[in-house]
Amino acid sequence: MLIVGELINTSRKALKAAVEERHAEYIQDMACKQVEAGAHYVDVNCGTMIHNEAAIMSWLVENIRAAVTAPLCIDTPNPKAMEAGLALAQQGQPMVNSITAEKERFQIFLPLVLKYKAKVIALCMDDRGMPETAADRKDIVRRLVTDLTASGVPEDDIYLDPLVKPISTGDRAGLEVLETIYYIRNEFPGVHTICGLSNISYGLPHRKVLNQAFMIQTMTAGMDAYILDPLDKTMMGFVYASQALLGQDPFCGQYLAAYRQGLYG
Amino acid sequence: MLIVGELINTSRKALKAAVEERHAEYIQDMACKQVEAGAHYVDVNCGTMIHNEAAIMSWLVENIRAAVTAPLCIDTPNPKAMEAGLALAQQGQPMVNSITAEKERFQIFLPLVLKYKAKVIALCMDDRGMPETAADRKDIVRRLVTDLTASGVPEDDIYLDPLVKPISTGDRAGLEVLETIYYIRNEFPGVHTICGLSNISYGLPHRKVLNQAFMIQTMTAGMDAYILDPLDKTMMGFVYASQALLGQDPFCGQYLAAYRQGLYG
Repeated sequence: MLIVGELINTSRKALKAAVEERHAEYIQDMACKQVEAGAHYVDVNCGTMIHNEAAIMSWLVENIRAAVTAPLCIDTPNPKAMEAGLALAQQGQPMVNSITAEKERFQIFLPLVLKYKAKVIALCMDDRGMPETAADRKDIVRRLVTDLTASGVPEDDIYLDPLVKPISTGDRAGLEVLETIYYIRNEFPGVHTICGLSNISYGLPHRKVLNQAFMIQTMTAGMDAYILDPLDKTMMGFVYASQALLGQDPFCGQYLAAYRQGLYG
Repeated sequence: MLIVGELINTSRKALKAAVEERHAEYIQDMACKQVEAGAHYVDVNCGTMIHNEAAIMSWLVENIRAAVTAPLCIDTPNPKAMEAGLALAQQGQPMVNSITAEKERFQIFLPLVLKYKAKVIALCMDDRGMPETAADRKDIVRRLVTDLTASGVPEDDIYLDPLVKPISTGDRAGLEVLETIYYIRNEFPGVHTICGLSNISYGLPHRKVLNQAFMIQTMTAGMDAYILDPLDKTMMGFVYASQALLGQDPFCGQYLAAYRQGLYG
């Protein structure tokens, strides 16, 4: 299981304010807290700062780097901001968030993935737009895995994101994702799968229960990485519980250790 | 989804006291509350009253019958108590909890299932005892389905219980159950699967999170009935959420209705 902590994102109000004031300690504290809570990677997203995203990405990465040794997940569709982040991420293996099967984006981001020997999140979308069915996703999965591995990206560095759409827009939205995960596990057992969780519940009340249940469902289908809020103790409790129930935690060791450390419950 | 409310069970202290005092209103209130909270069946278990179980079963069933129209699940390994309960259960189709593949128990309970045209919970155990692996369970599943249907029990009335053992006794305990459910869904799509949830977490701290996660995992694998506490709003929230996410709740109608009724959240 790989957890990417999602809290350093300027679409979050308090974080945006901290960035605008160049309040480095706030950012560093947010990075430390996520790592202490169990995040393996720290996501860095300043996509709302459209006028100087690359400069702010550099500032964020430098400051986070000074605070934690965990590797970073550079989260931007802007190639300049991506390179700025990767150039400073150094310690550990960085993660590119994200590449897609869109021709132009693939061609621009692939050299960065290779240059920095990064792990890469590959979104199941192409120039036709967002996929609808599992069949659409499987088609894109095949192309992404083929093209990435042919270019020299090891399977183990690929994290496929099936692209989660809200069940409020279609009853089969969750099922299409589960079916895609089963397919990837069978056809490409060497690659990983990842997603964020909040899209699934968009437009519905009491979203938490849907996000938590969807995490457990996708993990049951074989997903092994999530972009989430590691400070959410309820969610993290379900991560440890699901691992133990799926036979991925010998003698419930992590479940028990996390419980003793107060990481959930 | 079929929910069997588990709260009328004399292994629960307060309920045992109510039975000893023949406090009918307490029992009736417990039955009503479970049905209002979403239980489709009300389980009746007085197995701890070993000296007069059949008489107490009759008293319980008569009183519950007077309070709710929901069908009852008669829960006992004692044939006399089973027949006493079934004889009075009347309204709706009763449920026998449970038959097994143990030769003697099968021969004694089968006539009762047929006589009362009952739904039946069939536990995956035989004269060799509790199963260990999924392979053991699949073997018993085949015999149970074959023998029950050959005797005239419709597939739709059969609820297979894979027999849940604690993950504290073996890392694969949850996986063996999931594999058994996948097998049943593929091989016998016309039969149902059911289980209780608390065994899985026996011996571990913070059991709720394991029970909840296991409900969601088994539902993802295809389980469609549970014996649980319907007054547990968190658990019921996960039932509604999982249904919606698995495409079993058109337009999230039940999820939204249950939310408006305050059945979870």
